[in-house]
Amino acid sequence: MAIAVVGSLGLDTIETPAGRAEEVLGGSAAYFALAARHFLPVSLVAVVGTDFPADARKQLEHPDVDLSGLEVQEGKTFRWEGVYSRDMNTRETRRTELNVFERFRPKLPDRLRAFSNVFLANIDPVLQREVLDQLKDPRLVLCDTMNYWIHGKREDLLAIMKRVRILLINEEEARELTGEALTHRAARAILELGPEAVVIKQGEHGAFLQRRDLYFTCPAVPIESVIDPTGAGDTFAGGFFGALARMGRVTDRTLRAAVVYGCVMASFTVEYFGVKGLLRVQRSEILRRADSVMEMTRFSLDDTARLLR
Amino acid sequence: MAIAVVGSLGLDTIETPAGRAEEVLGGSAAYFALAARHFLPVSLVAVVGTDFPADARKQLEHPDVDLSGLEVQEGKTFRWEGVYSRDMNTRETRRTELNVFERFRPKLPDRLRAFSNVFLANIDPVLQREVLDQLKDPRLVLCDTMNYWIHGKREDLLAIMKRVRILLINEEEARELTGEALTHRAARAILELGPEAVVIKQGEHGAFLQRRDLYFTCPAVPIESVIDPTGAGDTFAGGFFGALARMGRVTDRTLRAAVVYGCVMASFTVEYFGVKGLLRVQRSEILRRADSVMEMTRFSLDDTARLLR
Repeated sequence: MAIAVVGSLGLDTIETPAGRAEEVLGGSAAYFALAARHFLPVSLVAVVGTDFPADARKQLEHPDVDLSGLEVQEGKTFRWEGVYSRDMNTRETRRTELNVFERFRPKLPDRLRAFSNVFLANIDPVLQREVLDQLKDPRLVLCDTMNYWIHGKREDLLAIMKRVRILLINEEEARELTGEALTHRAARAILELGPEAVVIKQGEHGAFLQRRDLYFTCPAVPIESVIDPTGAGDTFAGGFFGALARMGRVTDRTLRAAVVYGCVMASFTVEYFGVKGLLRVQRSEILRRADSVMEMTRFSLDDTARLLR
Repeated sequence: MAIAVVGSLGLDTIETPAGRAEEVLGGSAAYFALAARHFLPVSLVAVVGTDFPADARKQLEHPDVDLSGLEVQEGKTFRWEGVYSRDMNTRETRRTELNVFERFRPKLPDRLRAFSNVFLANIDPVLQREVLDQLKDPRLVLCDTMNYWIHGKREDLLAIMKRVRILLINEEEARELTGEALTHRAARAILELGPEAVVIKQGEHGAFLQRRDLYFTCPAVPIESVIDPTGAGDTFAGGFFGALARMGRVTDRTLRAAVVYGCVMASFTVEYFGVKGLLRVQRSEILRRADSVMEMTRFSLDDTARLLR
């Protein structure tokens, strides 16, 4: 029942209108694992350099996070620096140092090759394929991607999409991938590329899921103050996949609930710099926020149906 | 039970990626009235010039639309020309000719002064105040506004907001009005300015409503092809106010349903140039789309609650 995630780990320097954080634990695998572990055990496959701080590693150490797939290579850890706009809807990358991540060739330990729940976080689709090729029983494989691969490795990405069950992608990237300006049309075009379902992440507007004739939308959880949006999408993926795998079946019903948990988990990440929000949160708070999404979206048409029909 | 709307009527020339329409019936009052009349009779207060085409007038003629408050003044009708971006999320105004609208001083016939349901569409807040001053029993007054008034007539607008029950405003304008980047914070700041509730229109992402501790979000109805977004916000207002007034009470429950009907009606407008979508639609289709919003948003937390609690 556990989930394996293959992705990046790094040290992020982040500037937002709310402040600045230097060299905090980041990377898609970190956010994913620390979100998903609230639902199921997670095994993390990633690489860091010998300079990876003990502090950062400590944040990943948790009974439900297996770090045996975490490689330490001679050299420096992946570093990223970004600055967010005033409304935090856009960001500018100031610096990307791939360092040891540049030579990352994920090799899964035998135990992990048997995993059927695998998340291919946003890494080179060539590496995503190499991971897929190592899996013995890839029943529930989800993947994420980004504009860099959409433009730079489109063919590799399209090949991956024929082999994954659900694609997670943000709204702008879905448009770039498909050339469709309308989100639901972009979603349908993606389903034609292979996945059984697609989740389009809409940032402050929540998320949209399509599977066959199911359309589902879920709003973001309103947060009193957004401190740092970094990792919100990877956190969404962790909450979504965690809840889905925990429920044990992929149906319209479980997909709807999984999207809600994706939005809920992302709301904890944006409240603090880095992964701090995910480290603090208790399960009772997760359930409470899921209830608040229900409260924010439920309505009845009984009154109007009576008046208008 | 009827609704009076005071707003603009004009002839729009619109260019979108889907095509071009010349001098079609437009204006906030047209879209509002043709949406709201599906729920309740509407009385329209507006001005046109002596050049207002019989065709355009014909589109407004409907058993449930009272045109006795439509003034015809010597001169030319208000004209607007705009061009939409490829994704239709932004538009550029090419030409605005106020013409007779420049001298518009709404004078309500006695019969309309007794209306308790009044929509002050997006016009100069000084005119909105003059309308309010003419009302004998303004129980349910809603208003809309735009960035032009937020910047140019802020004090007049703030005075209006103390006298209206619900403000409808689009997301970017809500941010400009309040200086708050987060939508729900902008909503709360607006409630502090006077209205009992606020609806923030989010275009393709639907709408957000706040009233006291109620937050409600509703997605836009996915449309196969968006032809022309002009008037979607005014149409939303017509559907929202129409449904709300038809239900006869302002409660959390009726507000939720009203937002759904606002989103539903807006979806008909964007399918055609001008008001054509609103002229074609049948009540059964309105009810069907409201059901589809329910289908797009409903979810159950029973599975996860059992697993996680």
